Amino acid sequence: MTADSAPPRRPPAGAAVLRPDVTEAIRAAVFAELAETGYARMSMERIARRAGVGKAAVYRRWRSKLPLVLDVVPAVAAQGLPTPDTGSLRDDIRALLDVSARALRHPAVAQILPDLLAEAARSPELAESLHAALREAHGGVVAAVVAQAAARGDIPAATDPALAVDLLAGPLYWRHAVLGTAYTPPELDALAAATAAALAAGA
Amino acid sequence: MTADSAPPRRPPAGAAVLRPDVTEAIRAAVFAELAETGYARMSMERIARRAGVGKAAVYRRWRSKLPLVLDVVPAVAAQGLPTPDTGSLRDDIRALLDVSARALRHPAVAQILPDLLAEAARSPELAESLHAALREAHGGVVAAVVAQAAARGDIPAATDPALAVDLLAGPLYWRHAVLGTAYTPPELDALAAATAAALAAGA
Repeated sequence: MTADSAPPRRPPAGAAVLRPDVTEAIRAAVFAELAETGYARMSMERIARRAGVGKAAVYRRWRSKLPLVLDVVPAVAAQGLPTPDTGSLRDDIRALLDVSARALRHPAVAQILPDLLAEAARSPELAESLHAALREAHGGVVAAVVAQAAARGDIPAATDPALAVDLLAGPLYWRHAVLGTAYTPPELDALAAATAAALAAGA
Repeated sequence: MTADSAPPRRPPAGAAVLRPDVTEAIRAAVFAELAETGYARMSMERIARRAGVGKAAVYRRWRSKLPLVLDVVPAVAAQGLPTPDTGSLRDDIRALLDVSARALRHPAVAQILPDLLAEAARSPELAESLHAALREAHGGVVAAVVAQAAARGDIPAATDPALAVDLLAGPLYWRHAVLGTAYTPPELDALAAATAAALAAGA
């Protein structure tokens, strides 16, 4: 699901249709607020003011800031993450790494994700929801790539998709969010080859 | 370097010796302050008060809170990280994963590291110092394990130690700090085998 193609809630029959331009303004306001003030101090009221809409327009779409953030942030993190199907596990992984590295370099993600993770260390509710959203954002595509490779016989049929996600997302996240440096294209080539070998060895 | 075995600064010849029990009280206070109030609001004054020492005792050891935090936190993250030398790359990696997973489960690290990373996204000075400290904490041991394996002929001599660090630290960090779940011992076994295969394939 991308930010534009589907509103977060289908209006009940007979309800007023939610204007997509208002939804978009709210999404943009959430990013600006998160980057500027952080999750803890952000409020539905500040979001409405910044978006130039009434508070009711925000509440009509999301019941609180937690579901709002969880709807808006993972959509960007997974933006343009189609399932690659090149016929080669290494090339599929290389394509995934490329798109994911681009998402992690997104200025909003680079600033907001560390904030949310820090907040999550203090709030079990946020932690659980954020973790589920991140797992979901990455899990589907990786599971599909793993299933394709297993069907071709390139990797064992019993390959654990959860470990595949860790092997793919871990080094990227570690480099970008922890060490603060980006991979070069040749480094991504080497990482893709290494990850494919790890999965072929029966991770 | 562990927290206890070496004082942060060697006293200049003729200077008063720094009392280790005072240093230890300050270290403990830093952890408590970081966990409770976070890096941004922590001050040298609050640290001194909590440690029950004078401000001068803190400044005699560290000139500001940035070098103080960078001295105290990575010491815990790398605590008890000796270089394994089992004769098998997989077993060496398994040993490293075990110690690192334990460090990441340390309540102080689990709470403080996300805080520092969030703060680093706003402060280039903190970011640079923190990244260097983390690289250093992990880099030496991994480089040694890689060199041992290359000397045995288990992996190519040209294996890049930096990529080895990413492959080792990435999945662990992703699981603990991002997804908020810990690996089980069988999962660590599978991860060690996968990482060894990745390195043998010429990462």
